[in-house]
Amino acid sequence: MHEIDKYIRSIPDFPEKGIIFRDVTTVVNDAEGLRLSIDEMTKLLDGLDVDVIAGIESRGFVFGMPIAYNMGKPFAMIRKKGKLPAETISVEYELEYGSASIEIHKDAIKPGQKVVLVDDLIATGGSFAAAAKLIEQLGGEVVKMIVLIELKGLNGRANLAGYDVGSVIAYEGN
Amino acid sequence: MHEIDKYIRSIPDFPEKGIIFRDVTTVVNDAEGLRLSIDEMTKLLDGLDVDVIAGIESRGFVFGMPIAYNMGKPFAMIRKKGKLPAETISVEYELEYGSASIEIHKDAIKPGQKVVLVDDLIATGGSFAAAAKLIEQLGGEVVKMIVLIELKGLNGRANLAGYDVGSVIAYEGN
Repeated sequence: MHEIDKYIRSIPDFPEKGIIFRDVTTVVNDAEGLRLSIDEMTKLLDGLDVDVIAGIESRGFVFGMPIAYNMGKPFAMIRKKGKLPAETISVEYELEYGSASIEIHKDAIKPGQKVVLVDDLIATGGSFAAAAKLIEQLGGEVVKMIVLIELKGLNGRANLAGYDVGSVIAYEGN
Repeated sequence: MHEIDKYIRSIPDFPEKGIIFRDVTTVVNDAEGLRLSIDEMTKLLDGLDVDVIAGIESRGFVFGMPIAYNMGKPFAMIRKKGKLPAETISVEYELEYGSASIEIHKDAIKPGQKVVLVDDLIATGGSFAAAAKLIEQLGGEVVKMIVLIELKGLNGRANLAGYDVGSVIAYEGN
């Protein structure tokens, strides 16, 4: 198991019975966990040609911004519907129960830019797939998707076939 | 005017007539704006004895996390109600229309810790006042509140009397 594991709080039966919730608030609430998580995620991008780091609200902001700062790259915010003040495009996607909508400013990505998507965790891959649609609709290219934690039992990688997905730590199951 | 001004997008009559909305997404969407905003906010903490950086969801995460990373400090997440998976305390506060509730994990702050609160913008000071209540309820001490942008016409500083408030750029009016 990766040394980051000891900073992740695992909460059994949350939000419902049978699910182990992986809580990243305890990772960043420790100075060493914070440094390690950002440094290890940044390493996933070693040697990659990148123009923009894009984070998905709001834990994608937590991990994406320090990576963008360290790499000297701009950061694009992908937010829940109705939060961005200028002209946006949006996409709706399915959740386990119901659906959600995410948005990006039209001018946050320029055509041809190479974009890395950042979030805390990959489960089914639904939000990454939706975020990639936004980037591509603006003419950007998703060159990588990175997370701190991957839940292997939910087939995120299969649902994101064709994309390069990187994670720091992977758990079997969901 | 501060050099950060040119990165801020000002949107007239948003969300309603007479309000100029100050959009920080354009600041971080520029590599130089991002670097400058984080470095100038970090400078507001020069010489200050700090144990924890706490950010208010979600733009407080955007600016707070790179500051915590740079300073080698832990980061505490203050979130909207219902988003944190472990045991929390919460506080309700008044908005212009209606009210809002924010929460923090009970173990995110230890008694006696010196805490800096981070957000993107200070208007009336309502969310900072509420966040300070959470920190103090857990036995922490709010040693400073910092933002990128201060709107001077909304009396945030008066509403936060007794706290040390720092901003990088201040606009007259609201």
